[in-house]
Amino acid sequence: MDNLSARIISKIDRDRTHGASQLAIMGLEGLKSFAGSWQGDRVKEFCEELQLLIEALRIVRPSMAAIANLVERFQYQFEFLYSGTLDEVRASAIEIAEVLVQDTTDASAQTARTMAGLINDHEVLMTHSLSSLIKSVLGLVVDKSVHVVVTESRPGNEGLLLAEYLSTKAIETIYITDAQVGLWVPKADKIVIGADTILADGAVVNKAGTYLLALAAREHDIPVYVGCESYKWSKVSKDQVALEEMDPDELQMPPLDGVLARNIYFDITPAELITAWVSEQGVEREW
Amino acid sequence: MDNLSARIISKIDRDRTHGASQLAIMGLEGLKSFAGSWQGDRVKEFCEELQLLIEALRIVRPSMAAIANLVERFQYQFEFLYSGTLDEVRASAIEIAEVLVQDTTDASAQTARTMAGLINDHEVLMTHSLSSLIKSVLGLVVDKSVHVVVTESRPGNEGLLLAEYLSTKAIETIYITDAQVGLWVPKADKIVIGADTILADGAVVNKAGTYLLALAAREHDIPVYVGCESYKWSKVSKDQVALEEMDPDELQMPPLDGVLARNIYFDITPAELITAWVSEQGVEREW
Repeated sequence: MDNLSARIISKIDRDRTHGASQLAIMGLEGLKSFAGSWQGDRVKEFCEELQLLIEALRIVRPSMAAIANLVERFQYQFEFLYSGTLDEVRASAIEIAEVLVQDTTDASAQTARTMAGLINDHEVLMTHSLSSLIKSVLGLVVDKSVHVVVTESRPGNEGLLLAEYLSTKAIETIYITDAQVGLWVPKADKIVIGADTILADGAVVNKAGTYLLALAAREHDIPVYVGCESYKWSKVSKDQVALEEMDPDELQMPPLDGVLARNIYFDITPAELITAWVSEQGVEREW
Repeated sequence: MDNLSARIISKIDRDRTHGASQLAIMGLEGLKSFAGSWQGDRVKEFCEELQLLIEALRIVRPSMAAIANLVERFQYQFEFLYSGTLDEVRASAIEIAEVLVQDTTDASAQTARTMAGLINDHEVLMTHSLSSLIKSVLGLVVDKSVHVVVTESRPGNEGLLLAEYLSTKAIETIYITDAQVGLWVPKADKIVIGADTILADGAVVNKAGTYLLALAAREHDIPVYVGCESYKWSKVSKDQVALEEMDPDELQMPPLDGVLARNIYFDITPAELITAWVSEQGVEREW
């Protein structure tokens, strides 16, 4: 793999603050910048190296179906244009990536609008972690005088970034530890979460802690809405999905003999805990 | 209130690392040291000041019934000995406190032995926060080759103190964020927790996050055992109990306009999520 490809993969691999949609767009932008800056002169070589980058992007973040799905769409469309001069092939790759980025952005925007439409004036909303989609949704309901309960989302504390955003939008926000979720769910009108992947049966892969939030919500009859653009849907089942584990040093545990820190980033919320799945195609109440 | 009494109350008020049993013993020791070091010469005045300390101890940590219960036992026994010389009254107060400390210690030790008896070889145990009782239980099962999953327990990270203890005992331990609880419960054989208070209907007041652990445990049919010496039992219902809130600065959120950090320390786990209550009187499977 060439240097640029390695940098693209490494950046997505190390990222801890962006959700699946943003990293998927980062992957498409990576394909575009690879195509635009590749230094060789043979079409075959260009396609082979592009293929290596595609393969690496498909597996770099296995808990996020969006990346693999969008890269596969790129690959599918690109293979029809395999012939031609290097300039033609290069231009095609760039155009396909650009169109997919636009489609992705449009799908997110439409999903956010649909989700915002489900929120009523003065509601108390609760979320977990940082989802670019939920950020957009909350930005769209500024005039509805909602209140938002935000969790820290250890170990990365992405919840703090969301709280910072809500502060700039003058949305009244409560910031709590992940352990307090059970105390605040009964005060919420709705739970709104993003997703890294929707599994074949509708189960939701999202930041660890989402499952506990959804369990508490069911206990108190609080509806759980998941924002999940169609490019996040996967054919994979819960037994096949890889839940990424990150560096245990993120927990900042001092070294202790016989004690192992673990840092699994994602958990699975079964479909029966979800009230509705919201995508650019509308609101589904059954999967 | 005199200086010593104020120091005793302040110490218990500010403590973030000891559980209800240890703080209750600290309260009894406080009564003893007050009695031993009081400088006046009139019995009436001694009793009045002791009464002020008792009243302050009863309310200093409202989520921990153990402190009020043991202080009330002290008061009940002391009132029978209200007459006599100052030296006699002083000696009685000291003796009552000493006997109650011993009773409390004995009850905890018996509860720990009973709870340890419920644990089988090679089991995976999971707990939340730091309970002196659970620490004793785990110390008693060192020979059973158990594995323990310990949560950080934000914001105080008392789980780290438990992990340090388990390390010294060479008990294999996994240390996780509170948000990962749902990922690890299915791997556990038993959940073992302490309690700050047992409410009138058997519900458990314990460190925030316990409720989520118990919800996940029911979902996966993992039994939940609560260690609760009888001095932790309360006649208060869940609508009457005060869940203490601590300094929100413990969350270390930078100042943000419109964002309020909240730091409620305890939550309530309903009785239907508890498999058995273990005390010095034995194992109860229904409350």
